[in-house]
Amino acid sequence: MRESRESTLDFCGERFSVAYSLAGPEERARALADDICIEQTVEFPEDLIEGEEIRKKIFGRVESFGPPEAGGARQGEETFEAVISYAAEISGHELTQLMNVMFGNASLKPGIRVEKIWVGPGLAKALGGPRFGRRGLRRLVGAAGRVLLCTALKPMGLSVLELAGQARRFALGGMDIIKDDHGLADQSFSRFGERVERCVWEVSRANRATSGRCLYVPNITAGGSRMKERALLAKQAGAGGLLVAPGLAGYGALAELAADDEIGLPILCHPAFQGSFVADTGSGLSHGMLFGKLARLAGADATIFPNYGGRFSFNREQCRQIVDATEADMGEGIEPIFPCPAGGMNMKNIPEMLEFYGEEAIFLMGGGLIRHGRDLVESCRYLRDLVTTGG
Amino acid sequence: MRESRESTLDFCGERFSVAYSLAGPEERARALADDICIEQTVEFPEDLIEGEEIRKKIFGRVESFGPPEAGGARQGEETFEAVISYAAEISGHELTQLMNVMFGNASLKPGIRVEKIWVGPGLAKALGGPRFGRRGLRRLVGAAGRVLLCTALKPMGLSVLELAGQARRFALGGMDIIKDDHGLADQSFSRFGERVERCVWEVSRANRATSGRCLYVPNITAGGSRMKERALLAKQAGAGGLLVAPGLAGYGALAELAADDEIGLPILCHPAFQGSFVADTGSGLSHGMLFGKLARLAGADATIFPNYGGRFSFNREQCRQIVDATEADMGEGIEPIFPCPAGGMNMKNIPEMLEFYGEEAIFLMGGGLIRHGRDLVESCRYLRDLVTTGG
Repeated sequence: MRESRESTLDFCGERFSVAYSLAGPEERARALADDICIEQTVEFPEDLIEGEEIRKKIFGRVESFGPPEAGGARQGEETFEAVISYAAEISGHELTQLMNVMFGNASLKPGIRVEKIWVGPGLAKALGGPRFGRRGLRRLVGAAGRVLLCTALKPMGLSVLELAGQARRFALGGMDIIKDDHGLADQSFSRFGERVERCVWEVSRANRATSGRCLYVPNITAGGSRMKERALLAKQAGAGGLLVAPGLAGYGALAELAADDEIGLPILCHPAFQGSFVADTGSGLSHGMLFGKLARLAGADATIFPNYGGRFSFNREQCRQIVDATEADMGEGIEPIFPCPAGGMNMKNIPEMLEFYGEEAIFLMGGGLIRHGRDLVESCRYLRDLVTTGG
Repeated sequence: MRESRESTLDFCGERFSVAYSLAGPEERARALADDICIEQTVEFPEDLIEGEEIRKKIFGRVESFGPPEAGGARQGEETFEAVISYAAEISGHELTQLMNVMFGNASLKPGIRVEKIWVGPGLAKALGGPRFGRRGLRRLVGAAGRVLLCTALKPMGLSVLELAGQARRFALGGMDIIKDDHGLADQSFSRFGERVERCVWEVSRANRATSGRCLYVPNITAGGSRMKERALLAKQAGAGGLLVAPGLAGYGALAELAADDEIGLPILCHPAFQGSFVADTGSGLSHGMLFGKLARLAGADATIFPNYGGRFSFNREQCRQIVDATEADMGEGIEPIFPCPAGGMNMKNIPEMLEFYGEEAIFLMGGGLIRHGRDLVESCRYLRDLVTTGG
């Protein structure tokens, strides 16, 4: 470090930008912005950095600083918004390192929240984004001009035959997507391989009967190479998509699956284990960033999140922010994906949901379908009619 | 679901237990405990569950409920502690699904914090835990009766040759472990393969000169199969260990690496991207759970966390909790691992650190070493003397 250095940093000039909410007062927020530029890159005492090259090319750069956009601030607290840009090269053009630069160590300091991200064309191309997106997924299920419908196989503890029977009835009733409950993994009482085969078979049979294109989406969330193994198994068995909880499996693993031409299936992203990132602390990630933009960057085609008014803690504004983030511009070629609100959805609130979300959404209804009546097929048909006629 | 069901759940009786802090008042906390038993397992309306078998075998079970242990509560807020047990089978004996049961959807509800976990012998054996642990890692570096010393190669932006030169001087000075800064990935200006080869070579050369056993530990954090590729590359090049940030790469991927006999290297766990889990909100994970117990379950041999008094937000009590969790009993055969405090460590506070952490720790000093003087080798020797003589 103490020697004079030759230039080694031949950068192309592309940068990615991150908008942070920073806790006030203003002087503190400014100091936080300056600190992020260093902590998230060199993580080294600034006065010990020799020469200008690292300072100029590796440090983050505050592009703007000021009061937050309307609606961005938390009530009763003074926050500021800084947009900080980083050289694309320091991300190594990998999602895990991009996330690390964006929020790695900053996550350990209070008063820093990531609101938004924009990536340049090189990074966008390297990451790839969603394979299907809204348009592709809509084409797959053959649904035009209406909300898509999704439900979940559960409860955990049912046998594979029971779950497959449930899948058949959901498919006969006209659901577009039938996913595993995220609690179904590869347990002794519900083996992954057997479950996928049976459910694919029943859904295919139902599709032939209805001329429908319902997709069965097994939960492949697992660690390391197991997830890829399950994805391949699902693909070979004829599954229509994959459910992944990146809070458990990692966003990098999700991104690798999405980019894998051998798999080539749509991916639904599940929010398990991620609530802490969006707890109302003034730090973490914004709802739009986590469930919208990060899901898109990782290549999910739909993002499941807790609906407002249900048993979870999200409110209307947060859900709106997620919807916006699933379609807002964030870099060339990163397609819009489907918001998929879940939890607390029932036949009664469908009209309100339709008004709030519009038709560019997937409605995930679980208990609400079961509760509606003893005949699952009829309940699904009732729901399908509801969303087709607009309630 | 509506048909009568044959028994399919042939469970062995082993259970794992999770201690949760639940926000009061008492009635609310009790309702949360009951809710967790269902939400974290069947995720299904209780009144629609047919028959007794799922209720008895799949639901979580509240084993105890009451005021929290001394020190467990947050000041000024009434909390209660519930210990909830689950059948080992519902974890599928996989870490990702164990985490999902422990906190998947519960993370999305306010007022629930995971404090502790205990696993039975079957699950402990399936997960494996750390390969080296404190004893094994101490043996590897040949250090008895003293704290281990670790430092980091940085800043990002240096060439591979510069980083390798730094590694040589650290090793000559007597550091036990030299890790990549967690911001070093596989960037155009510091390619992973080249960096590992050069640094291994320089550290080996220094080891021969000092008769030391310093380990070079590259950062392999990446998504999906890339991490395994980098681990193999590091192994083949002769690296002494691996640095993984599970907040980016996933705990399941870390666990797979730790269990991989082909790799067989000690693993240091880095806290990047994880701060939100321990933000002071009354939800999330306790410091001990996240940085201690989860790291051990995943098979890390040492856990890096922000030291108190530094530029991060952790306090003495939280650091103490992490240390306790690295060694507390949590299941048969899950070895104690090293706590590795980092951030804000310097020559002046070493005596205090020694008093606080004792000798069963790894001290990670970065900037403090660089700042101490122009001769890195001398600075390392000075530090080594400090911790050997007890300051």
